[in-house]
Parts: sequence; structure tokens; C-alpha cells
Amino acid sequence: MTSNATGNRTSKMTPGWNSAYLEDIPRPQALARLRDALMAAGLWGVLGSELIPLDENAVGRVTADPIWARMSSPPYHAAAMDGFAIRSDATFGALPTSPITIAARASPDAELARYVDTGDPLPSWADAVVAIENVESLDDHGLPAADVRNPAAVRLRASVTPWSHVRPMGEDIVATQLVLPAGRVLRPVDLGAIAAAGHASVAVARKPRVAIIPTGSELVPVGSPPGPAGILEYNSLVLAAQINSMGGVSTRLPIVHDDLELISEAVARAARDHDLVLLNAGSSAGAEDFSAAVVSRLGSLLVHGVAVRPGHPVILGLLRSDAAGSHPARPIIGVPGYPVSAALTIEIFVEPLLATWLGRKILEPPTEQAEITRKISSPAGDEDYVRVAVGRVRNRLLAAPLASGAGVITSLVQADGVVVIPPGIQGIEAGERVSVRMYRNSAELDKTIFCIGSHDVTLDLLAQFLPRFDRRLAIANVGSQGGLIALRRRHAHVAGCHLFDPPSGEYNIAFVRQYLPGVPVRVLALVLREQGLIVKSGNPKRLAGLEDLGRPDVVFVNRQRGAGTRVLLDHHLQGLGITPVQIRGYNQEEYTHLAVAADVASDRADCGLGIAAAAAALGLDFVPLFKERYDLVMLRGHADNELLEPLLALLGPGEFRDEVRRLPGYDVSVMGTVVLED
Amino acid sequence: MTSNATGNRTSKMTPGWNSAYLEDIPRPQALARLRDALMAAGLWGVLGSELIPLDENAVGRVTADPIWARMSSPPYHAAAMDGFAIRSDATFGALPTSPITIAARASPDAELARYVDTGDPLPSWADAVVAIENVESLDDHGLPAADVRNPAAVRLRASVTPWSHVRPMGEDIVATQLVLPAGRVLRPVDLGAIAAAGHASVAVARKPRVAIIPTGSELVPVGSPPGPAGILEYNSLVLAAQINSMGGVSTRLPIVHDDLELISEAVARAARDHDLVLLNAGSSAGAEDFSAAVVSRLGSLLVHGVAVRPGHPVILGLLRSDAAGSHPARPIIGVPGYPVSAALTIEIFVEPLLATWLGRKILEPPTEQAEITRKISSPAGDEDYVRVAVGRVRNRLLAAPLASGAGVITSLVQADGVVVIPPGIQGIEAGERVSVRMYRNSAELDKTIFCIGSHDVTLDLLAQFLPRFDRRLAIANVGSQGGLIALRRRHAHVAGCHLFDPPSGEYNIAFVRQYLPGVPVRVLALVLREQGLIVKSGNPKRLAGLEDLGRPDVVFVNRQRGAGTRVLLDHHLQGLGITPVQIRGYNQEEYTHLAVAADVASDRADCGLGIAAAAAALGLDFVPLFKERYDLVMLRGHADNELLEPLLALLGPGEFRDEVRRLPGYDVSVMGTVVLED
Repeated sequence: MTSNATGNRTSKMTPGWNSAYLEDIPRPQALARLRDALMAAGLWGVLGSELIPLDENAVGRVTADPIWARMSSPPYHAAAMDGFAIRSDATFGALPTSPITIAARASPDAELARYVDTGDPLPSWADAVVAIENVESLDDHGLPAADVRNPAAVRLRASVTPWSHVRPMGEDIVATQLVLPAGRVLRPVDLGAIAAAGHASVAVARKPRVAIIPTGSELVPVGSPPGPAGILEYNSLVLAAQINSMGGVSTRLPIVHDDLELISEAVARAARDHDLVLLNAGSSAGAEDFSAAVVSRLGSLLVHGVAVRPGHPVILGLLRSDAAGSHPARPIIGVPGYPVSAALTIEIFVEPLLATWLGRKILEPPTEQAEITRKISSPAGDEDYVRVAVGRVRNRLLAAPLASGAGVITSLVQADGVVVIPPGIQGIEAGERVSVRMYRNSAELDKTIFCIGSHDVTLDLLAQFLPRFDRRLAIANVGSQGGLIALRRRHAHVAGCHLFDPPSGEYNIAFVRQYLPGVPVRVLALVLREQGLIVKSGNPKRLAGLEDLGRPDVVFVNRQRGAGTRVLLDHHLQGLGITPVQIRGYNQEEYTHLAVAADVASDRADCGLGIAAAAAALGLDFVPLFKERYDLVMLRGHADNELLEPLLALLGPGEFRDEVRRLPGYDVSVMGTVVLED
Repeated sequence: MTSNATGNRTSKMTPGWNSAYLEDIPRPQALARLRDALMAAGLWGVLGSELIPLDENAVGRVTADPIWARMSSPPYHAAAMDGFAIRSDATFGALPTSPITIAARASPDAELARYVDTGDPLPSWADAVVAIENVESLDDHGLPAADVRNPAAVRLRASVTPWSHVRPMGEDIVATQLVLPAGRVLRPVDLGAIAAAGHASVAVARKPRVAIIPTGSELVPVGSPPGPAGILEYNSLVLAAQINSMGGVSTRLPIVHDDLELISEAVARAARDHDLVLLNAGSSAGAEDFSAAVVSRLGSLLVHGVAVRPGHPVILGLLRSDAAGSHPARPIIGVPGYPVSAALTIEIFVEPLLATWLGRKILEPPTEQAEITRKISSPAGDEDYVRVAVGRVRNRLLAAPLASGAGVITSLVQADGVVVIPPGIQGIEAGERVSVRMYRNSAELDKTIFCIGSHDVTLDLLAQFLPRFDRRLAIANVGSQGGLIALRRRHAHVAGCHLFDPPSGEYNIAFVRQYLPGVPVRVLALVLREQGLIVKSGNPKRLAGLEDLGRPDVVFVNRQRGAGTRVLLDHHLQGLGITPVQIRGYNQEEYTHLAVAADVASDRADCGLGIAAAAAALGLDFVPLFKERYDLVMLRGHADNELLEPLLALLGPGEFRDEVRRLPGYDVSVMGTVVLED
């Protein structure tokens, strides 16, 4: 059983094979069990506080106590301008045409006007400041004073009201007032307020220490040479980064082999000086899933299996306090092995724990209401976390589900948000409104071009170029026809499309007319891309074209029925007069270009039909045969609007086009050509 | 001229006093001047990149190049379950009632079923995995095998479809695909995707190095004993924290006195090893504002004065490259001294620069549309940044302007957002819709109790307690009558009120009936707070009551006409038969409790009428005289709803009440009593 890949498993096991059964505990109850156990152990609350210097590193720390002002700010009535402190009543009646002159002193002990710099305390006899630029400083003879700051008298051409240009004592902060409550995550400006209130240090919650133990005999650390010899262990990297972002401090411990004793030792050692132990993975119920056994041996297993997808095989437990009494009881969490499950487990179970230990609120992403672009089915009973791309099309916020596999970490990387489907709901129909926990803010969505359809690597490049022009490309891959359907529903700004129509021998146009009848659309050519034979490196069978597929020494691998590439193949075979029965492997079907290439790489076949990029990805050779056109389809209402402008501009001559030209198997001669406009 | 307090100054100066004039350049033009100068100097673009290890510290760094996948993930077709790899076509027809048995090998070289762990490569002859729990492992005699993983044959009671429980090669990442674009601010999950794509390090933009030079002879570092001897220098702390949060690395240099030579030296030195120099402050046009002179001497002054409020006296300049050629030209920004101006200058001018140097998007807060709760007037020509508290009342989002002084850093601390009033608009009427740049997300606003009215320290305490119950208190101080007006406009959930009505001798009720006629309200008593004489420490004049105010040796300081405390004083003086002319200082008016206390502390007066907290804030003594009732007024529609429940619960016996009881001058006996319900 492996660590990095303990995904969604059914909960029924053959007795005797393994005695552990996974439960299906709803998330709130699972959290409550953990909370109750920690409360009983005296571990539910702020872990402790520490006094740290008030410097820029205090940002992000959480105040442990309310902060009360030790002093007022300003600490006295202060001049708000450079100028002269005076009594306002002495200026009554001053006008440009009849200035008033005030002597600096009425008597040696009685001042009437004194120069002050901004920030200086106001003399107690004064109640206003006149800005220096509105004062004439005079000497004993009524002439301009040599030292304007030390005049015998000042002449004013306007009266001032009481408290003009004075910052009253305590304007910002009054001594004894609450400056910040406990539980505040400190921001830069907070530091200024704390300093202004007379503090040079601040009491913050101690950072929870979290140990991360990767387990699995097949794991190798990041940086190891890849290959079937080992699976890269990168969950601990993501987990550590998540913990640190949440205000904890993480320790990534070395990989432990699948061995009950070794894992037990590692856990016991980690519990000594960490507040929380994360065991990744082995939390499922397989032969080499030791987490539950380790937790039961060293403490109590509170929860084994939560009704959350992905993330089901979560373990929550409490490790006994050390026999020597050197440490208290410690919570332990068995984190599932699939990367999406692992990351969500941290958000769902670790974040509330860290929030409690730090005394802050739980970090909750903002939510937005959106329309789902396609049906999602969800297993009954599970709370389902569906990663979505989010875009705004004609003022409707849309959420397009991304790949759902628990092993697809890129679904989290590309996600703009997550839709949580509550247990009990078995699915959501296309067009239904859902609540999205957003990873991006609404300002970004207004700059997002929502592209649903067939995938092509040039779209990745577009996504790479658009941010320079303040745009973002959100991509959801549902195939060419899915993209046209999305456009029809006004669920996308742009659809990528490469559908060959044998009757006309043309690409896309017949399909656009079929799927979007009477809708004003614009179709722009993006690229011509080469379809050809993916062959072994060096092309040992010297394959030159489809006519070679009939050779008895050649094994072919096909694409599934309905795939654009299959349509293309059958069209050309017909032209050549070759029938499927003449081709060895015609019935061996794969679902992606890359799967075809993989079959060639692994000797399952000698060749298959696909795009050059798939051959390049696996270091195979490629025999170009045809060029297919990949178009961008957009509704006319959008084609002209400001959002899409930068995308259209990129299709002209320039750096983007040059970069696509360098891709193997791409021809940019058609880029930006209007193929259809009606 | 001071560093920490160079605020909004008029741009007209007496010639001869200082020859520098402040300009009024609109923000976009000011930024464009800086950009153009940096472009000409070759400094507009990513500063440089560095290769860092792919570990948890990479979070927050910005990718310098697109990241392409070096390998696929999974790198081969992989088992997604523990079980047996088989050919799916061999299982056709298997049913619970008629199982199919498959031999492990057809011949010594031809396998038909092989045990695989999750994550193992699928053998090339197989196209599916049967989960271990659905397989019976048999020995040579058709009996259960001793080693279930090494059987002679397997028996299946159900057929499987092709690719069941197989993660196809490249399901997550296809070798050569784009994993992340350049300019991505790395998040925890991104690290996992980069690792999965075969990288152990990542090229990120070098962090811009920013020097912060505080200038001002009157400044003392945080931690110095406070007092008139010096002003605490904390701007550099906020600036450094802001820079670091934006992805730069800041150096806080020592405070430099107001001296052209010293400042020039410090700037020249800082320019050697920093990409940007921030000079705070001295950026205004006063006698001791040397920033402009320093910039002109060491390079070129691009902008002096921007039409932004607060923040007007901003300097943008370009320092010449070093004579020795040891460093290139460097931008320098003169940051105004008032803390709010300083912090906004970083957001407005430094953030776009750092974004360019890091190659990432500008950090833009999300915006929400809200109704402004009171009129704001804005100087014509300036772009005005108004800090606001934001709350949702009956589904309307409301923005209440906070204190507007550039010196009031707490206005930034308390702000939930900022309303930017464009130049040319001179003001906004109460009720107008505005766009708010939000510092908080909408989830928090739904838990915000919006309290507008008179301020009292118990509200601060409430704000401290409410987060434990998942609520937040947003407080805007507009006085008691302002609070009732806000309630009438449905601009608040709660108004704090302490208005004495001489005819009835009662508090608040007459005013609630006057301001909210016919509206169903509930008025709950919060506290009785003592009003009394604020006297010097030790009460040297042995003052015991209002009757002592007639004594010829006693100087009084009064509150302004209309203040609740003044109403109370006049009411009681009338009862005692004392007339204002008998009281020395009756006409000396202050606007706040604290200003009264400050006058007593500074020997301007012997006593004043105010609350105990003001006396305590300045270490003065207090002679309690009356108790005034401070009530919370709420609309009945809200009084009953879920949002306010935790607040109402806090008014019952418990920790909050105990804490208020400990405040000097507070009586909690009435807390939570219903004073009015109609």
C-alpha cells in the first residue's frame, strides 16, 4: 500500500485481509470528536503566548491579549503646521485690507505668539496655529524680521478659529483605550498603532509546531531521479507550506518505510516536541496502511474515515502523553495520500485546530453565487469538494468543474474556487446556482476570459501572455463539442474547436452552424497543427504514411470512436481504400493523444495517430501527415468587447505568434484569420 | 520642520521663506513620470531572477519564467487501487452467481493477473485493476491462497470495464505542458504541481531591496521613553512591513537629523545596495523639508506634490548612477510624514513599482458597492482616500466614514475599506452609492454588527468579546444624535446613546421618540457611567462638588454648547442656583472629555466635568458626582435576529459584565435591562 496514492476506496474489505473498516462520519461530527477529545485533554484553546519585539516580523502573528494604549497620540495638543502658536481671539477682525499685528510678548513672562514646528506641543496659553505662509514676521521697527522664526511681532491678514491647525491630544489614540483586540492577525498598519500607543513589544500566540511524517516504501524525495523506481514525495512540501501560511511552524521529517515499528517510533519521537503530528499517508485500510494501527497503539483512534470527497480516509486521533511525562497528549491526523485529498484535509481539519490554538478566527474564503456549467454527480452521503474555474460572462458568474480526480493536483492549481456539495445531494444539474468558496477576488474575475472547449497547448501559451495585458485566461477542457454547447448556453467567452467534417472536408464551420444556429458568431483560426504517426524513436519500422498501417509487421493503436482524430483517420483510410480489418490493433482504443504515445513508448504498439506534442512529450518520433485547423469560436457580442481585445491583439504578428511557431508541429500562417463571421 | 508630521499643506509659500513649491499632479500622471524615467534608465521590468530550492519558503515568491513539465504525472499508467492487474476482456460475463477464474499465467512468459499496489505501473498487457476486496486469491487446488498476493489464480464475481481503477499516464500533468505561467505568486499547492512536474528548484524574481530612511531631528525610535522630548518614529516600521508583505525586502536605516548634508550622505549610501530608497519625511515644502533638495542634488526631481489626499507632499525622483559606476540609477520616493499619508503612499506608488519589478500583477483589493452613511466633502482637484467602516444592514451594504485626519493611524487600523473619491468630485451626499476597496471579505461582513453613535469604552470591550461568538463589531463614532439619525436611515444595527433630557430628568427615551417616531425599537441599558470632576492628582484644591465651582480660587474648563455633559452641568448648576458668571473659566470650552482632562493636566484649569476614564487616561483624580445611563438602541427587526443574539447574550451575567465592572467609574447593575420596547 502506498503513501502517495491512498485515494477513495470503498469501505468494504474482505475480512481477514485487513480488519480495519473505514467509517463514513460526517465532517462536523468528526471535528466535534476531535474537539471534545482535545477539550478533555486541556488542549482546546490558545497554546500559549510569547512577547516579541514590535518589528516588521510581527506581521501575521496573532495578538494574544487585547492591546491597551499606554499613552495618547498625539500625547499633547500639537501644532499641525509650521507656523505661530497664538490665541485665536487675538486675531478677530484681521482682514487682508486691515491686518492685525500681535507682539511676540505682552511682557517678559507673557507670550502672545511663538514659532512652532509641525508636531511641537502647543504652548498652554495658545489655542491655534497660524501657518507660516500666512504670517509676516516683523522686527522692532515693523520691518521684515531677519530671523522669521524669532520676530518681535507677527502680522496677520486673516483671523483664525479656535483649534485651527492643532492636532488635539488623543486625536489618534487616547491613553487606556483599546487599540487592538486579542486574536487580531497583525497587519502592517496595526504595528504603527501599537507603537503609537507606547508599546515596543507585543504579546502574540505561540506558533503551533506541526510535524509532517511522510510514509511509504515507494517514496523518494523531491530532487530524486524520477521513474518507476519511486514515487516523488511532494505532499509534505504542500502540507508544510499550508501550515506555515496558516500561522503554524512546520517540520518536514524524513520519509519512513511502510513498517509499523518504524512509523510508531517516528510518531513517538515527533510527539515530543510538536503540538500536532501529521502522518501522510497510510490512513486508508489497505495491507500497508499502518496509520490507524500506530494511532491505536500510541493513543486513541477517534475517527477513521470521514464522509468527505476527496479526502475520505482521514484519521483523527489523540496520542497519549509521554510515559516519562515529558509531553502532554498530542493530536495526530492521518492525512490521505492523494495530493488533492491531502491539501483539502489540511483546510478542513487542521485550519480549525490552528485557529483555535492561535486564538484567531477561522480563515474563510469569500463566497460567491455562480451557475454551474455542467452536471456534477456526487456520491450520496459524501460532502463533495468540486474544484471549479470561475468566470463572468455577460454579468453571470459561472463555475466550470475541473478534473475531479483526487490525484490531480493541477485541479487545485487551476481552481478559482471550490463548490462544496453537501452530503445528501447526489448531483447538481447544469445551470443550477451554487455557492463557490472563492480563491480569487471579483476584480480578477472581471478580467478573466473564460475559455471552455478542446485543449491545445497554444491556449496555455495564451494564458502565459495575457496577464501582461491585464487579462487572465481560465480554461476548462470539455472537448470541442462541449465548448460549442457551452457557448450556446452563454457559459463561455471563447471555445477552442477542431472538428473535422468529412462531407465538406472543412473544419468547424458545419459544427458551429449546427450547434449555434442563427447566433451571431465569429470564428478565428488559431493554428494549423500537424496530425501524424507517433512512432518509436528513430522510426525503426520506417513508417511513412497511413498506407503502412496495412503492413503485417505493424501494430497500430487507435483512438476511441467519436474522437476527432479517429474521424480523420477513417476519412483518410477510406480515401486510401484500406479497411479496418487490414490493420493490426485497429480495435485497440485509447482516449487521449498521450495514451496513444504511451502505448508506442511501452511497446504495446508500433504507431498511432496523434499530434506532434504528444510524441515530443515522451521523446518519440513523429511522421507528419495532415494539418488540422484549431479555431477560436466566440459570440459576436463578446468578439467586439473590451475584455477580448488583448486576446485578439495577440493573434496578430508578435511575440506570441513567434512562440507558437517554435512549438513542434504548429503552423501559425492562419493565425487570426476570420474563418466565419455571421 | 518635522518628519513625522508633514501633513496636508497649502501649496502657497512666502517667496524667500522657501523656494520649493508643491505641485498638484494627478496620480496617474505622477506614476507615468516615474515609469517613463525608469524606462529611460532601463529599470522598468523584472529586476532579475534567482533559482531557489523548491521548499516551503518558496510560497509568496513570484515565478520568473513559465514552468514547463519535465515529466508526466503519473509518469505511467498507474494502479489506482491495491488489487490485481488484469485484461478487462477476460472478465466479460463474470457475475456473483457465475464467477470467472483467471489463471495468474497462461504460460511462464504470459501473465494474466498480477498483484499491484496503488501507484504501481500497470503491466503493459493489462488494461484494468480489480480491487483486492473483489478478488478471491486461489492456490493450485482452487482453495484460498496462503499468500493472497501470490495466487495461482484469481476468481472474480463481477466484470470490469477497460481502465477501471487505473490512473492514466499524464492524468495530472503531461510532460512538456505549461504548469505555471511566469508572474505567478506561488501558493502551497503550486509547489506540489512544480514538484510533480519534475522540478526540484524554481526560478523566481529577485526580491526588490528597499531602504527606508527616517529623517527628523525630533524623532526617537520605538521603545524610547515618550514625552515632549521626542516623537516616536514608527512610520518606518509600517513601511517596512508593507514592503515585505508586497514581496520586497526592506532595510530600516537609522534616524537622520534634519540636515541636508547628513540626509544626502544617508541617501547616497543607501542607493549603493538598494533598488529603491524611501525618504520619510521632509517631503513637504517647509524650512526643514530637505527631501526635494537632496533628490535634486543627487539626481532629478520628477514629481513634488500629487493631488492625492491624504498623501499630497509625495516626492518621486531618480538618483543618478554612482560616479564610480558601482550602481545604476535608483528611484527615490519622498514619503509624507503623517502615518496615514505614508501608508497610502506605499500602496499607491510603491506597490505598482514592486509589482513591475517582480513581474506580477498589482495587488488589487476586491471592490464592493455600498451606500455612504454621511456626507463627505472632498477638496476639489484631489483624489481623496476616505477610510470607512463597512457593514451590511438589511441586505444593504453601508460604508461609514471614519476619522479623516492624516495623523489618525487608527482610522486605517479600524477601516474595513477605502472609498476613493476621484478628483473633480467635491463631495458625496449621505445615501449615495460608492465603490469601496475592501480590506475584509463578504463572509466577515455578514457577521458584522454595525454600531454607529456615541463612543464608550465598553463598546471596545464588546468588540473584544464578540469574535468568540463569531461576530464582529464595527464602530463609527458620530455622537448620540448621529447614531439615532443613522438608525432612522437604517444605516446601523445598533446606536450607542447617552442623551439627558432636562424636562423629564430621564435619559434617551425622549430623544428616541423624537428621532424614531412610530418605529418599533428596543432600548437596552448598557451601563451607568460616572460623570464627575476631573481634578489634579491628589485633588489639591479639595474639590467635592459643583458648588465648589463658584470658589474664586478655582478655574474651571467647560465643554462646548450642545454636548451632553454641558447639558448635564447646566441642569445641575440651575438646581444649585449657581450662575455661569460666578464660575471662572465657564466660557473656556473644549470638545472632548480628554481635552478637558488635558487642560487640567497642563495647569490650564483646576477642574472640568467629564467621565472617570478621561481622568484615568492622564493619571488625574476624579470626584464622582452623577451617574448617566448609556443605552444601546436597536430596531426591533434587528433586535430579534440572529446577528445580534451574541451581543444580547453578552449583556447577561458573565465575563463581559465582570470586565466592565472593573473599569473605573462604571456600574453594570442596569446592564441588559429593557428601558423601552415599542
